[in-house]
Amino acid sequence: MSEAKKARTEKRGFLERLAAGEVIIGDGGYVFALEKRGYVKAGPWTPEATVEYPEAVRQLAREFLRAGSDVMQAFTFYGSDDKLENRGNVSQKKHTGSAVNDEACKIAQEVANEGNALVTGGVSQTPNYLSGSGKEAVQEQFRKQAEVFIKNDVDFLLAEYFEHVEEAVWAVEELKKTNKPVAASLCIGPEGDLHGVSAGDCAVKLAKAGADVVGLNCHFGPDETLQTIRLMKAALDKEGLKPYLMTQPLGFKTPDCNKQGFIDLPEFPFGLEPRIVTRWDCHKYAREAYEIGVRYIGACCGMEPYHVRAIAEELSEERGCLPPGSEKHGLWGDGLRQHTKPWVRARARRDYWENLKPASGRPDCPQVSKPDSWGVTQGDKDLLQKTEETTDAELKDLFKK
Amino acid sequence: MSEAKKARTEKRGFLERLAAGEVIIGDGGYVFALEKRGYVKAGPWTPEATVEYPEAVRQLAREFLRAGSDVMQAFTFYGSDDKLENRGNVSQKKHTGSAVNDEACKIAQEVANEGNALVTGGVSQTPNYLSGSGKEAVQEQFRKQAEVFIKNDVDFLLAEYFEHVEEAVWAVEELKKTNKPVAASLCIGPEGDLHGVSAGDCAVKLAKAGADVVGLNCHFGPDETLQTIRLMKAALDKEGLKPYLMTQPLGFKTPDCNKQGFIDLPEFPFGLEPRIVTRWDCHKYAREAYEIGVRYIGACCGMEPYHVRAIAEELSEERGCLPPGSEKHGLWGDGLRQHTKPWVRARARRDYWENLKPASGRPDCPQVSKPDSWGVTQGDKDLLQKTEETTDAELKDLFKK
Amino acid sequence: MSEAKKARTEKRGFLERLAAGEVIIGDGGYVFALEKRGYVKAGPWTPEATVEYPEAVRQLAREFLRAGSDVMQAFTFYGSDDKLENRGNVSQKKHTGSAVNDEACKIAQEVANEGNALVTGGVSQTPNYLSGSGKEAVQEQFRKQAEVFIKNDVDFLLAEYFEHVEEAVWAVEELKKTNKPVAASLCIGPEGDLHGVSAGDCAVKLAKAGADVVGLNCHFGPDETLQTIRLMKAALDKEGLKPYLMTQPLGFKTPDCNKQGFIDLPEFPFGLEPRIVTRWDCHKYAREAYEIGVRYIGACCGMEPYHVRAIAEELSEERGCLPPGSEKHGLWGDGLRQHTKPWVRARARRDYWENLKPASGRPDCPQVSKPDSWGVTQGDKDLLQKTEETTDAELKDLFKK
Amino acid sequence: MSEAKKARTEKRGFLERLAAGEVIIGDGGYVFALEKRGYVKAGPWTPEATVEYPEAVRQLAREFLRAGSDVMQAFTFYGSDDKLENRGNVSQKKHTGSAVNDEACKIAQEVANEGNALVTGGVSQTPNYLSGSGKEAVQEQFRKQAEVFIKNDVDFLLAEYFEHVEEAVWAVEELKKTNKPVAASLCIGPEGDLHGVSAGDCAVKLAKAGADVVGLNCHFGPDETLQTIRLMKAALDKEGLKPYLMTQPLGFKTPDCNKQGFIDLPEFPFGLEPRIVTRWDCHKYAREAYEIGVRYIGACCGMEPYHVRAIAEELSEERGCLPPGSEKHGLWGDGLRQHTKPWVRARARRDYWENLKPASGRPDCPQVSKPDSWGVTQGDKDLLQKTEETTDAELKDLFKK
Repeated sequence: MSEAKKARTEKRGFLERLAAGEVIIGDGGYVFALEKRGYVKAGPWTPEATVEYPEAVRQLAREFLRAGSDVMQAFTFYGSDDKLENRGNVSQKKHTGSAVNDEACKIAQEVANEGNALVTGGVSQTPNYLSGSGKEAVQEQFRKQAEVFIKNDVDFLLAEYFEHVEEAVWAVEELKKTNKPVAASLCIGPEGDLHGVSAGDCAVKLAKAGADVVGLNCHFGPDETLQTIRLMKAALDKEGLKPYLMTQPLGFKTPDCNKQGFIDLPEFPFGLEPRIVTRWDCHKYAREAYEIGVRYIGACCGMEPYHVRAIAEELSEERGCLPPGSEKHGLWGDGLRQHTKPWVRARARRDYWENLKPASGRPDCPQVSKPDSWGVTQGDKDLLQKTEETTDAELKDLFKK
Repeated sequence: MSEAKKARTEKRGFLERLAAGEVIIGDGGYVFALEKRGYVKAGPWTPEATVEYPEAVRQLAREFLRAGSDVMQAFTFYGSDDKLENRGNVSQKKHTGSAVNDEACKIAQEVANEGNALVTGGVSQTPNYLSGSGKEAVQEQFRKQAEVFIKNDVDFLLAEYFEHVEEAVWAVEELKKTNKPVAASLCIGPEGDLHGVSAGDCAVKLAKAGADVVGLNCHFGPDETLQTIRLMKAALDKEGLKPYLMTQPLGFKTPDCNKQGFIDLPEFPFGLEPRIVTRWDCHKYAREAYEIGVRYIGACCGMEPYHVRAIAEELSEERGCLPPGSEKHGLWGDGLRQHTKPWVRARARRDYWENLKPASGRPDCPQVSKPDSWGVTQGDKDLLQKTEETTDAELKDLFKK
Repeated sequence: MSEAKKARTEKRGFLERLAAGEVIIGDGGYVFALEKRGYVKAGPWTPEATVEYPEAVRQLAREFLRAGSDVMQAFTFYGSDDKLENRGNVSQKKHTGSAVNDEACKIAQEVANEGNALVTGGVSQTPNYLSGSGKEAVQEQFRKQAEVFIKNDVDFLLAEYFEHVEEAVWAVEELKKTNKPVAASLCIGPEGDLHGVSAGDCAVKLAKAGADVVGLNCHFGPDETLQTIRLMKAALDKEGLKPYLMTQPLGFKTPDCNKQGFIDLPEFPFGLEPRIVTRWDCHKYAREAYEIGVRYIGACCGMEPYHVRAIAEELSEERGCLPPGSEKHGLWGDGLRQHTKPWVRARARRDYWENLKPASGRPDCPQVSKPDSWGVTQGDKDLLQKTEETTDAELKDLFKK
Repeated sequence: MSEAKKARTEKRGFLERLAAGEVIIGDGGYVFALEKRGYVKAGPWTPEATVEYPEAVRQLAREFLRAGSDVMQAFTFYGSDDKLENRGNVSQKKHTGSAVNDEACKIAQEVANEGNALVTGGVSQTPNYLSGSGKEAVQEQFRKQAEVFIKNDVDFLLAEYFEHVEEAVWAVEELKKTNKPVAASLCIGPEGDLHGVSAGDCAVKLAKAGADVVGLNCHFGPDETLQTIRLMKAALDKEGLKPYLMTQPLGFKTPDCNKQGFIDLPEFPFGLEPRIVTRWDCHKYAREAYEIGVRYIGACCGMEPYHVRAIAEELSEERGCLPPGSEKHGLWGDGLRQHTKPWVRARARRDYWENLKPASGRPDCPQVSKPDSWGVTQGDKDLLQKTEETTDAELKDLFKK
């Protein structure tokens, strides 16, 4: 066994690994993957499947582990109490947020122990913030989730998927009280957060708030995410701040996004298929992220286990090992040498796949879209948290816009 | 409970259901879905995961059941002995074809019993046929698989994924000896089989060979598959033949395919993402298939559980029920009324999704490709079955072509 | 001077040239080119510019001559009396059809004499036919135009741009009475004429009616036109008929056309720019047409002088000469060796241009369109000839459809 | 006659018109239009056609006048002596630059007098500058051309098509010595000039050098040109400078250009067809330019007479008149009400054309390209002026790059 590999086979801490210069590979996107599998509802996107269908969540976690993930992220996305009872969502009443988050931690812990992975619990933006409920109310939401994470003794905490750096800073402050390492990632692009704070300034604020790791997740594909992390790194460097960097981009191509990211694309969320990235896009992403200096390299919505495996394969030399799932995958298409048809065997090579420009099979479709840009921002009445389901009359008003 | 629904809740036979005019919904594609999850190797595409990772296969089967599948297809694709030892594949030696197929049946049976689904075992084209080994050798392969299926008492047998109707007829003849109902589907398009037999003539040959159900699977997307089944139906009608019809198309857009289907596309198999169909494409497919008169309406490679759910949702009125998985899916995007952002709530309506022309986010890519057309056909030395792995020297020769 | 070139420098007859196996290069599209220059109105598309702006017509004719055209086609398209007074067109009243056609012949003759070109006068489909006025009324229109052509002693007559082979046959019959050679071309595609007569049958009918040359012009781009001429040739061969063949396709890409051709495309006529063919498309067209056996190789709407020059350059070896206009054009981009920028000089080679896949710069646009398909055919009241301008009320009705 | 129209019918001076707030419409692109017509050679792009084929140049000028151009730009582009003898160009030896420029002025003057148009003579970037010959040598080139312009008493002088503001400033300084009004336009985009001077700074430098009009021409399509003029205007406003503004963009879509503009696109110059703008793109361009405050609104390479007519039609209300060429063009497609087919008549309306997303008919092509980016800049040996033609050996070296 190589030295590098040996180093990885004992379970060492999150910051310890980063301090040693190791690459930490994140996992992929739970909500999108489980929506396609039938266990998460698009719209609310809440994680009550942890109590309803734990075996389905566990299976996906195992697939990510097998793909090379070093972190099992407890499936707690949008697991705050206020989100679980937002607009007709009955999950809070039925299961309680505590139970949902607790079960998520247990599944993550169980699967992590099957390999050598770390466990994290995450908080994300809240309806309370969008409704303008103020710092205390918002932090209260985070506190409730963090209590569950601490009870389950996760390895580190994650504040992710924030559109406003202000709320992310509140989350970091709250999470830091636990004395666990804290990673913080925003869902912003090169234009900065929704209040107009530049990407660079966002990074600086998070670092100053005490985040050990700073970066990005969701809302933009690999290209735009890397473009943004470059802006963040430049600003951090200028300030002499040295947090570790993380990126967990979408598994979708998003060259046409504006500030709000893929939520604004007309294809969100049920027509994104033509935008799905290939495994080769993930190779490219992993390499570039590594070269920029990102060391927590993961993935978000749309990224399936095979995408994560591609990241792990690209960095296999740096990490000293291939992921377990590569048992079923020849590097750079090498498995095709076993194909029956000779012209498919002729594709068993790196340059073929690196240079492929994949067609969409949709000649009647455009290649880029015009994002919706309603300009609705924090505090707008259309964003207010409410427990009642949206009525048909309310919908009708929206359809007219 | 509606009459229609009640009728479906007792386990009735395959032909009984078809004779009653019921729609039978097939399942989706195992090899592609499990490749993405890390349990099947692209290249050989063989199903040894049934013995290696049964829980992963079982989970996928459950997702299809939940999506509305009335048939659990035992994961026996390419499970013939000669394929399991083709070009360096060690699965035959390690597991034996019998064990792989047997375990596939057991998983299918177990999951089918969790609902009200039928079980089928399938055979498909063999390296022996491509190598010109003759009828007896080829049928011997089918016989070995069929023995396992009979031992497991599946509800019906399937001869699927044949490029040459001759071999499919041999399969039907062999399978008919079991006295089980037999469905037969070719992987051909509007241009007919690889020996130049027209689609219509193919259908007639299969019906005359005794197939109870005749149709298509794989190699072409929904549009081309429906175009081809129309040709088949016209020829059958002309001959006064009345087998039931089945279609299980790819989950990819393939307007640019020639005779050989998606195998020839330069994107096969690792760059097909931009071609993945949306759930709305599946609604359209299901409706059109139904209107043509197809009653076994299923799906093949690239079709994930949510695609099957869309088929079941489109036909929910005809079937008298929604699939269990619709618990997590508002019809026609209705779940979006629970979304935080008002402009996403504005997408909670049928006409929005029916009219969407989804962009690929890839302006530097073409929309259609030029298929490889090597013209290598049955009997060519490049197609011969061989147990040794393809050598680097052989590959190098192919790369030059 | 080469023998081949010498042979071309004395003015020899139309059929004489064809009988000698020579290639005859047609000219390009007058109505579209002059519309862009400001002398023809899109909508009526009538040729009264011959009397109003003769110098503009003459200049374009000279450019075609210079580009290598062996035929100067008198600009008489849609010059029948009934078209010149259709739907508010005042040209008949103001100039008379006779004068318009006569001046067209004089210009064509003048320019033809500046080189060694032939002159032809053409008739095309009439509002009378669409209105169901009957054979005699329709032939009367052709007779009036033919009288002018005979008075001007053109080298041959052309019956072109017919959607219905029946009307084209009537035209051939009428024109044959003059004892001039007659060429006949339909504006149909692979699906045949608008009455459902197959392309092959159309060709046979025209040949049997006495047309010396049979072929196609307008409505489809080079690819579909060549596909159709192949069908025509096969049918003629089968019948043992040997007319010469001609093709004068559009200068637009039209893979998405149905039976009615580019008129049905939503881009017709003011959004066709992205479909304009390159000079390299014309090289390919000329070569393929020649190989099929077409010897009257010309061009129609959208084909500018430089497109015709490309045809002449591609066939320069067969013809023994380059066109005069090649003075200002290096073959296969060779003129770029004089460019200031080195990377543009690097494009001075054939394989660069042959392999270029030109981008549209329009990522928000589709690549193919859905043709309008109103199914309005000959005899429909919406097609009736009428002298009054379309009213706003009539338009409003149409906008609703 | 309206007041606005009356004002335009007496020939008033260039600055007088601008001072009165009038819109001045420029003409279109001579070199590209005449290349397509067979009178200019792509590669050298020099204007010796003025002496060789004056009637062809005159005809194009008349078409622009008819389309609404208020300025007849003498066809002197690249008419400097050093360009006329660059890399094998024999035009300087054969005709002399003086004669070429002189004849250009005479043609422009003749046509201008047929309407009420102004005449200008222009200088543009020189091989001398690229070769690093220094200010005096460069200005000597401009002086020689200016002498001809002054002799012909043009209405104003134009320094256009400069990639480096430094050379443009030298041109302005030289031209100002004549006491004629001077307009100056760079061929740069939003990234600024090739020496890295920002677009805003470029504008300020030109204004400070004394240019009465400052702006842009060529190298970028309407969208990018307008984006750049906005940057220029902002910088001028900030400095309190108030030159008039001009824009003469390409008639091509160029969203994928980098700093060097369309020269770097792989489609330049023989595969640009799919990028050609429609007349509706010109309406949009004219309106936006007007709203920004541009008052000299013209066009460059790729812009044909019908494009200029569209600019004039869009601004017909502001100008109090339609251009003469609108005699043959119904506003917003209105001429289609005279079309034979009802579904084409149904397109006789503004909103149809404003909303059309025109397809390219090229599904196998990308929508954007990757520009060549050789990074070769002023002073590089590959850019040196030389009179000898590029040799095959030199070309071969370039092909390898």
